[in-house]
Amino acid sequence: MGLSGGMDSATVLGYYYNKKYQIYPLFFNYGSKHNKYEFESAKKLAEYFETKPLKIVELDFIGKIFKSNLLENQGEIPEGHYNDSNMSLTVVPGRNSIFITIMAGYAESVGADTVAVGTHMGDHYIYLDCRPIFISAMNTAIQASTGEKVHIETPIQHLDKTGILKIGNSFTKPVPYELTRTCYKNQEFSCGKCGSCRERLEAFENIGRKDPIQYQK
Amino acid sequence: MGLSGGMDSATVLGYYYNKKYQIYPLFFNYGSKHNKYEFESAKKLAEYFETKPLKIVELDFIGKIFKSNLLENQGEIPEGHYNDSNMSLTVVPGRNSIFITIMAGYAESVGADTVAVGTHMGDHYIYLDCRPIFISAMNTAIQASTGEKVHIETPIQHLDKTGILKIGNSFTKPVPYELTRTCYKNQEFSCGKCGSCRERLEAFENIGRKDPIQYQK
Repeated sequence: MGLSGGMDSATVLGYYYNKKYQIYPLFFNYGSKHNKYEFESAKKLAEYFETKPLKIVELDFIGKIFKSNLLENQGEIPEGHYNDSNMSLTVVPGRNSIFITIMAGYAESVGADTVAVGTHMGDHYIYLDCRPIFISAMNTAIQASTGEKVHIETPIQHLDKTGILKIGNSFTKPVPYELTRTCYKNQEFSCGKCGSCRERLEAFENIGRKDPIQYQK
Repeated sequence: MGLSGGMDSATVLGYYYNKKYQIYPLFFNYGSKHNKYEFESAKKLAEYFETKPLKIVELDFIGKIFKSNLLENQGEIPEGHYNDSNMSLTVVPGRNSIFITIMAGYAESVGADTVAVGTHMGDHYIYLDCRPIFISAMNTAIQASTGEKVHIETPIQHLDKTGILKIGNSFTKPVPYELTRTCYKNQEFSCGKCGSCRERLEAFENIGRKDPIQYQK
């Protein structure tokens, strides 16, 4: 599975840990600036849930080739945007497809049978490669390419952020959300203001709990 | 499209050049030792068929993570094997799936509508991710993830090596097979003895032509 250090993949990780799966996590590094903090979170989560060693997958070309072409076609993109991963998500078409095929190859390498994907309700309307129709076709492709040895599962597909928090807290060994990283800003403490932080804070409000992480004053 | 410098992708390139497509070639670098010669061939072919700049996609993790895990599970793999790309093909599950999703993302980045894949008859029985059933499911996935903007085509799917040579020579501007690189050995001149060279020489014999490249004495 892919482990970004965020709430979604942390919840997926907790889900499979509590189902007693052996977990082989991958951290995808595609050059966004907040990656340092995400990686720290991912590492702590991997330790907490006793996974196999967390492996880093360097995908420099995503920043280099995909972006530079967009720059070519669309003129200069303001520098400020590079801090904002919402933007890099937007300029990286098919990012999720690429992650899934790499996970499937890795799964086959290590003899795992499930590729766990943390797509959820909030994603579907924004990113085409998070929608169930895409996941379903990709699952058929992965099964065909692995001789039915590997398949895709999406345990939080039907949930929104609030539902994700609820399920994560309901596990026998709950998800330690204090270890997760949501903010897109390149600073130690989360900003509490970017779209991603706001969505997180809202979800905690919805379940009637205080977000355990520290925010920038 | 992916351009490896071999006969198959050279033929796919010629096919689309002769159909007057604008071509955005990618060279996938996953650390095999003969890559230097393949890249030179790919570059020459790209120039010959006047493509957009050939971009390199570094996929170091394929060698590092996928291989190291196989090593973990299966003990040491003899060093000699590393010269032999047949082996790295075998130890890289889902390589073609990964290439296709990257090409689809790149296609969307640059506004291209077709991902050209050089799978053919010779592949199907060996590599599961070259079979038509896989390509078809992957095509559905790619179309879903790009909002029908990008699709996959496999113009040489129905051909074997001999058929590929025949079609490549039949184009208005034929494929310059003297620029292609087939040998897996890490040496300037092709060996003429590895499985890949033999298959190539056989195909030339079948069409009644002399292979235009120089072989090691």
